[in-house]
Amino acid sequence: LVSVLSSAIIVYRLPWTWKCSKLLMKFIHAGLNTIAMILAIVSMVAVFDYHNASNIPNMYSLHSWIGLAAVIFYSLQLFLGFAVFLLPFAPVWLRAALMPIHIYSGLLIFATVIASALMGITEKLIFSLQNPAYKESPPEAIFVNCLGLLIVIFGALVLWMASRPHWRRPPEELPKAPRPNGGTSEGTEAESTMTDCSSADKPDVGFNSEAARKRNLKLDEAGQRSTM
Amino acid sequence: LVSVLSSAIIVYRLPWTWKCSKLLMKFIHAGLNTIAMILAIVSMVAVFDYHNASNIPNMYSLHSWIGLAAVIFYSLQLFLGFAVFLLPFAPVWLRAALMPIHIYSGLLIFATVIASALMGITEKLIFSLQNPAYKESPPEAIFVNCLGLLIVIFGALVLWMASRPHWRRPPEELPKAPRPNGGTSEGTEAESTMTDCSSADKPDVGFNSEAARKRNLKLDEAGQRSTM
Repeated sequence: LVSVLSSAIIVYRLPWTWKCSKLLMKFIHAGLNTIAMILAIVSMVAVFDYHNASNIPNMYSLHSWIGLAAVIFYSLQLFLGFAVFLLPFAPVWLRAALMPIHIYSGLLIFATVIASALMGITEKLIFSLQNPAYKESPPEAIFVNCLGLLIVIFGALVLWMASRPHWRRPPEELPKAPRPNGGTSEGTEAESTMTDCSSADKPDVGFNSEAARKRNLKLDEAGQRSTM
Repeated sequence: LVSVLSSAIIVYRLPWTWKCSKLLMKFIHAGLNTIAMILAIVSMVAVFDYHNASNIPNMYSLHSWIGLAAVIFYSLQLFLGFAVFLLPFAPVWLRAALMPIHIYSGLLIFATVIASALMGITEKLIFSLQNPAYKESPPEAIFVNCLGLLIVIFGALVLWMASRPHWRRPPEELPKAPRPNGGTSEGTEAESTMTDCSSADKPDVGFNSEAARKRNLKLDEAGQRSTM
C-alpha cells in the first residue's frame, strides 16, 4: 500500500516521464491511487474479519482511528481528484484553486498513513510478542523495529522528492502538478490528444529531460503558467 | 514540546512579525528551538530514570528508536542552524545551499516527533489501561485517542502554515526563510543593526503586512533575492 501510494505521489517527478502527455500521466497517477485505495479497503476488510473472528473489539485504538480517518480522507481525495482534475468539466480557476490543497492533502495523507503504520507495528509487537516479550528485545522485535525505521526513511525520501522545486515540471508553486512537455502556450487541455510517451511531436525536448526542465523554466519566466 | 517546536516553525509565518528585523526573528527562532531541545532532553532523562526505577528496559520499542533518532537529528539541526545561519561566518552560497535542507529537515523532524508521540500514546494506553483494558474502550481510552487525533490535526495545521507560498516572505522557493522588511537591495547581512520590531525605518511598510508582502513579491520579481 505504502509503495503504491509512493509511486502515485512521485510519478510526476520522474524526468523520463516528462516526455509523456499530461493526460497519460494523470491516468497513471489516478490508476495507482485507485490500486492503493483497493488495497486499503481489502486490508480493512481483512482486519475487521480477523477482529470479529477472534472476538477483538473493532476501532478501539488510536491506530484504528487515525488509520480510518486517513482512508476516509483518501477516498474523498480520490473522488475530488477524479471529479476535478481528470474529468474535463471543471473550469481552470477551480483546478488552480484546488491543486495546492490536493497536493498538500495527498502528502499529509501519505504521512498520516506512515504514522498509522508505525502505531500498528507498535501494537502488533506488544500484543504478539510474549515470552520473550517486546520489552526483552527478541530478534523479531529488533527486526520489526528496523522495518519501522526503514518505512520512516522511505517516507522521508518520497516527501523529499515530492517537495524539490527543481524536480517538478512547472515551477510556479511548490509543490505543484506537472505541465506536459508538448503543452501549448495557453496552458489548457489542448494537449489531451497526445496520450502516449512515444508520440513526442517536439523531438528537441522529447528524450532530453534536462532540456525539458529548462524549457519549462523558460515558459514560466514568460509567465505562461499552467495551473494544472 | 510540540507546541514550542510549532512556534519555532511558524514564527517566520506571522505577518505582524514582518516588520521585525531578520536578526531578531532568527534569535526568536533559535531561542524557541533551544527551549524545545531542553524540554526534549529533560523528558528523555525523566523516561530513562522512570525505566531504571521500574526495571523496564530502555530503548526496546520502535517509539524509542524513532524518538531518539528525531532528537539526535534535532540536535544536529540545531547545531548546524546555529553555526551556519546565526553565526556571521558562513558564506551566502553555503546558507543558500543549506536552507532548503534546513527547512525540509525541520518539518520532517516535526512530523517524526508527532509520529513518535502517537506511538508513545499507543504504548502507554496499552500498558497502563488494565481492567478495563484499552480494548474495552474505557473513557480514558476515548479521551486519549481524541488527544492523539488533535495532535495530528494541530500538526497538519502547522505544516499547512509552513508550506503556503503566500505566507512566506521571500517567494523564490517554498518553503524558505524570510527576508527582512527593512532589507537592503543587496539582500545581505546589512540589516543586522536593526534588531527590534519598533525600529522600522521604512514607515510605509512598517505595520502594513499586506504592503510588506507585496513589496517582497516586487523585490523578488526584480531578482533581488536573499537566500537566507
